[in-house]
Order: sequence, then C-alpha cells, then structure tokens
Amino acid sequence: MKRPTIMDIAAAAGVSKGAVSLALNGRSGVSDATRARVLEVASSLGYRPSVTARALSSASADAVGLVLVRPPRALGDEAFFFQLIAGMQSEMSSALLLQVVSSRDAEIELYRRWWAEHRVDGVFLVDLLVDDPRVELMSSLGLPAVVVGGAGHHGSLASVWADDYAAMTSVVEYLKSLGHRRIARVAGLSSLLHTVRRDQAFLASVVDGVIVAGDYTAEAGAVATRRLLESGEAPSAIVYDNDVMAVAGAEVAGGLGVSVPDELSIVAWDDSVLCQHGRLTALSRDTFAFGARAARALLAVVDGASPTDVEDVLPELVVRGSTGAPSARG
Amino acid sequence: MKRPTIMDIAAAAGVSKGAVSLALNGRSGVSDATRARVLEVASSLGYRPSVTARALSSASADAVGLVLVRPPRALGDEAFFFQLIAGMQSEMSSALLLQVVSSRDAEIELYRRWWAEHRVDGVFLVDLLVDDPRVELMSSLGLPAVVVGGAGHHGSLASVWADDYAAMTSVVEYLKSLGHRRIARVAGLSSLLHTVRRDQAFLASVVDGVIVAGDYTAEAGAVATRRLLESGEAPSAIVYDNDVMAVAGAEVAGGLGVSVPDELSIVAWDDSVLCQHGRLTALSRDTFAFGARAARALLAVVDGASPTDVEDVLPELVVRGSTGAPSARG
Repeated sequence: MKRPTIMDIAAAAGVSKGAVSLALNGRSGVSDATRARVLEVASSLGYRPSVTARALSSASADAVGLVLVRPPRALGDEAFFFQLIAGMQSEMSSALLLQVVSSRDAEIELYRRWWAEHRVDGVFLVDLLVDDPRVELMSSLGLPAVVVGGAGHHGSLASVWADDYAAMTSVVEYLKSLGHRRIARVAGLSSLLHTVRRDQAFLASVVDGVIVAGDYTAEAGAVATRRLLESGEAPSAIVYDNDVMAVAGAEVAGGLGVSVPDELSIVAWDDSVLCQHGRLTALSRDTFAFGARAARALLAVVDGASPTDVEDVLPELVVRGSTGAPSARG
Repeated sequence: MKRPTIMDIAAAAGVSKGAVSLALNGRSGVSDATRARVLEVASSLGYRPSVTARALSSASADAVGLVLVRPPRALGDEAFFFQLIAGMQSEMSSALLLQVVSSRDAEIELYRRWWAEHRVDGVFLVDLLVDDPRVELMSSLGLPAVVVGGAGHHGSLASVWADDYAAMTSVVEYLKSLGHRRIARVAGLSSLLHTVRRDQAFLASVVDGVIVAGDYTAEAGAVATRRLLESGEAPSAIVYDNDVMAVAGAEVAGGLGVSVPDELSIVAWDDSVLCQHGRLTALSRDTFAFGARAARALLAVVDGASPTDVEDVLPELVVRGSTGAPSARG
C-alpha cells in the first residue's frame, strides 16, 4: 500500500492542498476544526512516519532536557530545583523536557532515547557523581550538554559551577572564629560530587569534626540532629547541606531544650524563604540566576559554541540569628 | 534527488542494515559510536523528514505538556507548582514538557504547535480563567486535557479540582467563631477562576470584609498587609491566598509591632514547609497527591477513557499559633 500524498488527504478531507499543508505543519491559516479533520484523515489513511523520521528531522527539537533522579515526594520540597528550573526557563524560548526517574541507569537510557528520537537539542546534567559515566556518554552520543554544579572541568563538557570547597572552608572558618571547635556536618547524598567536595573541605579545616550522612529530607535532618545532640560529645555547631534539613534540625534542638544559638549554632546550605523566615544563617546564592546562566551556556553549546567552564560567584554567608559564640556547654 | 534508503545509509556508514535500523530507532544493540556515525551519515545524505512526518507519527509522544503563565522569578518561590509537578511525575512513566510563557496567547499558540507536531499526548491546564478560552480550544483541537483546579465541569474536559468555595467559607466561619468581625483577604490573581470563587465565598460569609488584590509574591503580601494595618480600620484577621504572601504579612505585622495572634490573626492558603516552620495556621492539602491524581486522570483520557470530574478532598484547616481570639483593638 503506497503512502498517501497530500493530494489524497486533501481529497478525502474535502479541503485544498494548501489547507492540508498548513494543517499538517501546524501553521495558522486554517480553522481548528479543519486542522483536526485533516490530521484525522491523514492518520486514517495510514500516513504514519517512523520514529526514524522524527529522529532525523533537521528542525530544532525546540526543547532541552532535564532528568532528575530523586524520590518524587522528597523532590517536591526542594526549592532549589524549582528555582533552578524557573531560572532556566527565564532564558529559554523553548520548552524543558523534564522527567523524574528512580535510577542513574534509567536516566542514561532516557538520554539515549531522547537524542536518538531528536526530542531534545541538548541536556542539563545535575547532581554530578564522582567519576560520572554521563560525562563520557554525552561525548560519545554527541549530545550537547552542560554540567550544572559539580566542580568544573568535566572532560569536554561545558559547565556552570560554584566552588563548594571554598564555600565550605569559609563556613568552617567563620564558625572557628566564633570559638567553635567541635563542629558537625549533616551531609547530602554521598554519591554526589559536590557532597564529596564539601566533605573534603570540611575535614581539612575543622579542628574536631564529625560528618553524618543525610538525604536532604526533613526526616534525615531531624534524625541526624537528634543523634548528634544526644551523643556524649555533642557539637556546638552543625552545618547542614540544605535548608530543609537545617530547619528540621532547629526544630529538634528546640524540642530537646537546646538553645539556638547559645548552645547550638546552625548554618544551612542554600538560602531560601525557609531560612529567611526561620532566621537561619545560610550560604546564599542566587539559584534562579544560576539556572539562567546554565541555560545561556547550554543554548550556546547547542548553537555550536565551544564548551567553556563558567564559575558562578561564591555563595555568600548570610549571618542571621542561628549562629553565635558557643556557651560553656559547647 | 531521491530519498536515501536504509541500504544507502548502511553502505555509507560501513555497517549492516540491522545496525542502521537499531541506531535510527534508538534501540540498544549498537555502540554509541556506531549510533552517532549512523545518525551523522543519515543526516548528511539528506534524510530529513518534515514536521508533517513527526506530526503524524502514530507512536505515543511519550510526553504530556504543562504551560505556566507566570513571571519566572516569582514562580521559583511557589512551592505549590513544584509539589504539583513532582506529584504528576510520580504517576507518569513519560516526560513532562514544561514551558513558562508570558501571556495566555503564547500559551494557546504553544498548545496548537505541540499538538500539530505531536510533541505531547495531552496537557494539564492550570490557573483556569473565568470563561477560559482554553476549554473550547482543547475540544476543537481534539487535544486530550485535564483541568487542574478550577471548579469542575469545564465543557467536555476532565478535571481534578478542590472546592475553593467551601474551603473559604470554612476559614471565615472559623475566624467568626473566634470572634472576628473585620476580616481582610489578600487575594491572588483576579483573572483566575479560583480567585473569583474564593472572593465570592469570602464576601458571602464575612460580616465586615475587605479584599486586597495580590499576585502571590512576598512583595504583594507585604504591601497589602502594611496598607491594611495602617488604615484607620485595621482588620483583626487576614486570610492570604498563598503561603509566601502570608509569611511576608506576618513579618510586616512584626515590624509594625502588631502582635500575632493577639492583635492580628493570620491564615495562609496551601500549607507548606514555610507555614509549618512559621507556625502559621493554614489550609492544608496534599498538593503532591493532587498532582498524582491529575496525572492519573490525564493518562486515562489519553488512553481514551471518558472525561470525568474528580473532586479532591476538601482542604483541611491546620490551626497553629497564628490565629486566636481578637483583642480589644480588633
């Protein structure tokens, strides 16, 4: 059975060839009713190109991709990602193809498929891992990509990053200058490169430090804080890897009768409305602007520009009511 | 010049026909390097189908769309939408095609194009307007859609909604039962259907009420609150249309020396971590679950099910420290 032509579709739909062309190409000039009829007739005549056809379209996919590997329920509380996405969109005239998956393997499979089917013109890579397989994958696929976060210098990929090492060092130095010696860190996911960088910086600068693993959820922040405060050697200061864990930590301290900041100083990573209203000292950066910068970098790479590393401004420590000199207890 | 065949591509790339097929269809079984070479060769041979080809693909687009009309900077602060998106993704194995645009016209143009190009299998409609033109558009395009929010019963479209009228009535009745008479409402965007529904319910149940327009930003919440508290007849209670405005309002009250809840009661719409930690009384619903429900409804419609209206559970008023009986001042 031969493929139907535009003439066949026009005859069957009872409209002109020009109307069929306009309708099929999504251009204005035909009514919605006509467009719907033309699409239906074309479809019924078996006008069904393959995935291959779509894959090889020379047109821009008019979308860039972002895959997040997180439990969706926890993700919804993370203001960071939505600020990042809003910032990305502020610089893009195209759409963001967003998918939340449960594993790195699923993420990688998605990049292969999206690129083979030409669903995206490029992708943002977030949550960079130590020895991240995605860096090599992008190169071998030839899929334009920008690494967002991480520590820069990822093979031949462009990146937009903040210096987590220097930022953590500045936090610890600030706490030491207040007189803290025993300082704890409630870390984020240990598989992430920026977690490792912060761990390294923390251990290199503390006098007497302890790291507890967390996963950015309020539950993790609460559990870690309780364990730290009820241990024989409670720290006089805790640095949390995100705002949600820090606020949960402050609650636990309150519940245990540990006064903030007299008996416990608290610092949150990534300032947010949550920190502002909880009066928490926080490392502040403009995540929206960071997302906008990442979008500009990706659009440049998609347009054929050479990949570059763009270092974001160093996060600034905004001192609020949750930090101070340690009491005798600390 | 005739279109190249898979044989032509195989010969030029120096691989088998089978490998070309696997590569072009995004299936596993060929190396990334081979896939990249095949795609490059196919492209260089001029294998470029039209937008029409993509538009008529019988395959699922494997994505559903969500268009948001908001200033991106303000959007980033709105936990509601990210919770909704996370909930939607929790029920979908496909991607979400997300775009933020600046006008309803741009939004409508996007639906036409996405559907004509078969980029989406269906769309979520949010921020429903009074007499919303999108409802009729979906029917005329034949684009599967689910209205999220709104008040149900939108032409032939499926919807997932909460009863904003009943919820607002319950808030006002609660405040009246505490003894409040002069109650203010800091509303959301006046063009939105749920804003109008809440306005109507508010005016129908208050004794002495005033409505001030807002736009969900902290700035709007602060400005409205200042104006209300500095007026000759300050209200003894304010109901805000989102969490961000309520928290900003509480800050302004503090700055003016107006004690919460003794001199001013505050209620926020849509509970969030922000309200929880700010100890604000709030109307709570599970936005994540609402998003999940919306996704199930859309997937059903895409699969050919008859559109239905699904009414979400009524938001529950969670009473915290920001509401109480009015003092003599109120």
